[in-house]
Amino acid sequence: MNPPKFFAHPTALAESTQIGAGTRIWAYAHVLRGAKIGRDCNVGDLAFVEGGAVIGHRVTLKNGVMVWDGVKIEDDVFVGPGVLFTNDLMPRSPRLPLAAARYHTKDWLVPTRIKRGASLGAGAIIVCGVTVGRFAMVGAGAVVTQDVPDHALVTGVSAKVRGWVSETGRKLEFGADTTAVCPDTNTRWLLVGGRRLVRVTGPK
Amino acid sequence: MNPPKFFAHPTALAESTQIGAGTRIWAYAHVLRGAKIGRDCNVGDLAFVEGGAVIGHRVTLKNGVMVWDGVKIEDDVFVGPGVLFTNDLMPRSPRLPLAAARYHTKDWLVPTRIKRGASLGAGAIIVCGVTVGRFAMVGAGAVVTQDVPDHALVTGVSAKVRGWVSETGRKLEFGADTTAVCPDTNTRWLLVGGRRLVRVTGPK
Amino acid sequence: MNPPKFFAHPTALAESTQIGAGTRIWAYAHVLRGAKIGRDCNVGDLAFVEGGAVIGHRVTLKNGVMVWDGVKIEDDVFVGPGVLFTNDLMPRSPRLPLAAARYHTKDWLVPTRIKRGASLGAGAIIVCGVTVGRFAMVGAGAVVTQDVPDHALVTGVSAKVRGWVSETGRKLEFGADTTAVCPDTNTRWLLVGGRRLVRVTGPK
Repeated sequence: MNPPKFFAHPTALAESTQIGAGTRIWAYAHVLRGAKIGRDCNVGDLAFVEGGAVIGHRVTLKNGVMVWDGVKIEDDVFVGPGVLFTNDLMPRSPRLPLAAARYHTKDWLVPTRIKRGASLGAGAIIVCGVTVGRFAMVGAGAVVTQDVPDHALVTGVSAKVRGWVSETGRKLEFGADTTAVCPDTNTRWLLVGGRRLVRVTGPK
Repeated sequence: MNPPKFFAHPTALAESTQIGAGTRIWAYAHVLRGAKIGRDCNVGDLAFVEGGAVIGHRVTLKNGVMVWDGVKIEDDVFVGPGVLFTNDLMPRSPRLPLAAARYHTKDWLVPTRIKRGASLGAGAIIVCGVTVGRFAMVGAGAVVTQDVPDHALVTGVSAKVRGWVSETGRKLEFGADTTAVCPDTNTRWLLVGGRRLVRVTGPK
Repeated sequence: MNPPKFFAHPTALAESTQIGAGTRIWAYAHVLRGAKIGRDCNVGDLAFVEGGAVIGHRVTLKNGVMVWDGVKIEDDVFVGPGVLFTNDLMPRSPRLPLAAARYHTKDWLVPTRIKRGASLGAGAIIVCGVTVGRFAMVGAGAVVTQDVPDHALVTGVSAKVRGWVSETGRKLEFGADTTAVCPDTNTRWLLVGGRRLVRVTGPK
């Protein structure tokens, strides 16, 4: 068997056999058997990735992030420090006699999906069952309880749409024609019905 | 002396002599001397239990939970990932000269109590001095600054009562007679004055 | 070379050469090369201090605090458990091809400053770019997005001024003359324009 092509800090516990080349796993992080992590990811100190979690390529998990079974994180996502996911909408201690039956199967598990290029700010909490759209940006400390549209900026408890951002994270300022240009890529974006962002011109 | 009857991960620091049989303590968790933990608990990675903390039986502490001196957690409680407790209402760095006198005794310590069967959602913050009632459910990201009634569902910053849940965590939907039945246990519950839940019929 | 004058728990990673005498660094904490920590600090379990972070004397970092490059914490500050800082207002995964250029320099880095004697409550999130004033108190779970005046008490998401506190953390109750006396120090404080606290009499 070849040596792994990823880096793990001496104090990290990298127990999964599905960690991509170029990925770095830092101090006291713990990747459990059955977790799947793609290539060129950065997994910060104290991060925890449970079996059943699926993480794409070039993802950043900052320190202390916990990713549970049922959470799927697509390529290029930024997960800020201390971000929390969940996978149970009505948790009870599984050894509480009245609740034990519920935990005999995995019917209790509710999935979550973070789409490509999105960013989750420090300490954001993602309640299970939601999808965070492509290149969306979730503000620090937001509690996300509903789906987040592609490119939306959401903040607050619970999180509401406050604006729109480009792929590079720039806040878009719309003119009277409800279009805006990202200064980094010169892509022009059209905001349709105040609720959906569509590319008009520019690089894909 | 007999070997301990609990399990501790090789990287865990289990320094207390009061940890019950069947309890499991996972990676990088730290249980200090003087902490008390009951039987059949599950203490997640990176959890921290300070001397003076008291934890009952069958309790789940998910990853990264910190339980301080002055916090009492009763049997069957679920403490979600990243939940934070506190024990000082006006903290200052104890080595700040003007504040040092305050820390010469423990008069600054304000206790907290989580009653049997309650659940604290991911990232909830429990400000010291409160009691969370039996089988209450605290939503993810809630900041609890007041007592939570038995069976209440609370969410938000600061947390307010939004509904009521059964022992198994089911949200109760009340009819015109202000009673509701838990589909898991067939227990019928009466909501009295919109503020207090009373069992009408069904298993205790 | 002399041995270090600070204490580090056997599981801590104290990689910086700039840690002051009398400072204690607890289990699984990680202080990176290039971090600067003063004398007589207390760095709790699982805390993380990045290169470029600057921390004064007698500071308390409770468990799990993460201090990034760009964050400056002055003397005597209390940083509660799970407090999160940030240093990027529009984070993207640095290996996302469209965003990579932004991370070739440090122009993305936005500094934060916590002034002398301030307290940050459990789980507070300090969005980068702000200054938290001297002896200010940030409530548990607050998300700070604006500067906090000296001695102000702020809470909520996003944090707003709710009152004023003395050096010892006492909430000040103002009379008709808009002055208040701290019972610990007998200092009299004047609230000017409802927005700024000025010492009238008493010890400096």
